[in-house]
Amino acid sequence: MNCIFGIDIGGTEIKIGKFYGDKLEFKTSIKTDISDHGARIFSDIFKKIDELSTGEKIDGIGIGVPGPVVKGVVNGAQNLGWGLVEAEAIIKKRYPKAYCRVLNDANVAAIGEMAVGSARQYRNFVMVTLGTGIGGSIIINGEILEGITGAAGEIGHMQIEYGKKRKCNCGRYDCFEKYASATGLVITALELMKGRQTLLHEREVSSRNIFDLAKEGDAVCLEAVDSMVGKLALAFGNIAAVFNPEAIIIGGGVSKAGDFLLDKVEERFQEICFYPVKDTKFVLATLGNDAGIYGAAYAVRK
Amino acid sequence: MNCIFGIDIGGTEIKIGKFYGDKLEFKTSIKTDISDHGARIFSDIFKKIDELSTGEKIDGIGIGVPGPVVKGVVNGAQNLGWGLVEAEAIIKKRYPKAYCRVLNDANVAAIGEMAVGSARQYRNFVMVTLGTGIGGSIIINGEILEGITGAAGEIGHMQIEYGKKRKCNCGRYDCFEKYASATGLVITALELMKGRQTLLHEREVSSRNIFDLAKEGDAVCLEAVDSMVGKLALAFGNIAAVFNPEAIIIGGGVSKAGDFLLDKVEERFQEICFYPVKDTKFVLATLGNDAGIYGAAYAVRK
Repeated sequence: MNCIFGIDIGGTEIKIGKFYGDKLEFKTSIKTDISDHGARIFSDIFKKIDELSTGEKIDGIGIGVPGPVVKGVVNGAQNLGWGLVEAEAIIKKRYPKAYCRVLNDANVAAIGEMAVGSARQYRNFVMVTLGTGIGGSIIINGEILEGITGAAGEIGHMQIEYGKKRKCNCGRYDCFEKYASATGLVITALELMKGRQTLLHEREVSSRNIFDLAKEGDAVCLEAVDSMVGKLALAFGNIAAVFNPEAIIIGGGVSKAGDFLLDKVEERFQEICFYPVKDTKFVLATLGNDAGIYGAAYAVRK
Repeated sequence: MNCIFGIDIGGTEIKIGKFYGDKLEFKTSIKTDISDHGARIFSDIFKKIDELSTGEKIDGIGIGVPGPVVKGVVNGAQNLGWGLVEAEAIIKKRYPKAYCRVLNDANVAAIGEMAVGSARQYRNFVMVTLGTGIGGSIIINGEILEGITGAAGEIGHMQIEYGKKRKCNCGRYDCFEKYASATGLVITALELMKGRQTLLHEREVSSRNIFDLAKEGDAVCLEAVDSMVGKLALAFGNIAAVFNPEAIIIGGGVSKAGDFLLDKVEERFQEICFYPVKDTKFVLATLGNDAGIYGAAYAVRK
């Protein structure tokens, strides 16, 4: 049986999965060499592919990249040092017989969840990744919406507050991800804990600890989580009013808070959503860090 | 040549256009009879179609309806007194040889602008109708996004303020349309003019008068328009970050303010938008009230 490679390029490591059909046979990772504007990233990947496929025919190579991608062309990937890179063409040149695709990393993760994860029953959904920042993907009729400049699904950069309260890495203020990502939750908790009693004073102020203490009933942590939930419900309500999807899939590190978070988000969403979208489902992602390699492989499977 | 009908059902009148190919041959309108839950709307339309097409073969009948529509089924149209109505099936039954389609009215207007109006060069755009309320349509690869329950494009019901300041007809608070529609602009002006000098005290407080006085430099009216522009830029910025369209087409009564409004919106959008979507174009709709019949006809033309 011919093999397929699903590859997820991150800023620190490149995950590589070798698949037979829809079965992940083997996975590994290599370090991301971002020196010289990431000039060696492709040769490092090709070396690993060749090593893992000696004598085998490669049917497809799918790659997820942390930056906007339109029709296989990466339009800048800051964490890799890349500017405009014709990624799909580079891979096709090296592996002319394989079906090659390059997509945005959030998008391949969404495809992964749709292929073998928690979005299997959906063809119209929004995937939201709550981590250090907030990533997003829009899937319509089973297809990724890339957008005209590859920026579709950038829901982390919806502005959801006024007054230039929190500056975002994008240079603007009050983006969604400054309130509802792990980073945003920590900022909120640091603001709320000043001069108040909370066990958080004795621990590292991390998203995980805030959730753990909130589950134990710590008032300050509960307030921080509630504030985050309010922003999540607002943003999800607005996305639902515009896209009217079947479901919103929540992934990323913060989603490890599980049903504790999901139940609160659903409850608040029901309170504030526009009634025609009240049946929008909320589901936790299930593939975790492997979503990218699964999705990248699925994208090149016929 | 066989004819096509493009029909736009509104709460007070039904516009009917008879087309040959893409040419509007004749247009007329009849009153919307909403008595008995709009039970006579179809028979009134059929009567008019028969009257206008004696002896001619009808190739297609396209209809726009003021309510959510999924695959030809209307899921409630408050202004017509309709609940769940299998509209497309009803028309097909009466005209089995014609290609029939029923779509949401905002969506047919968007199709109209794409067919013969200001969106001709776009296949990925958002159409926003600024009138008494705010309607919207999402067009992806030339196709309308209906959404799972027909509610996609309801951008007027994105929540863009906090504090339950303005109650919306949908039962919720602080929807986009309570700030950036003609109605919203009037509410803002009424708030701002209290105890202040403005020529608005001597005129009817209407969207049109507010824009006219703003153009003449009236400080209160300029402030009201600026407040509206701020909300428009915020909502458009968020929609662009999620959907990354080529263009945002602005129609509806408020769009008659023309370039005075458009220039302000573009300028503010540039100040606050996420940089990958900064090339989003802003364009005024050109078909006015005829967009619906053009779009309905285009939707059934092959």
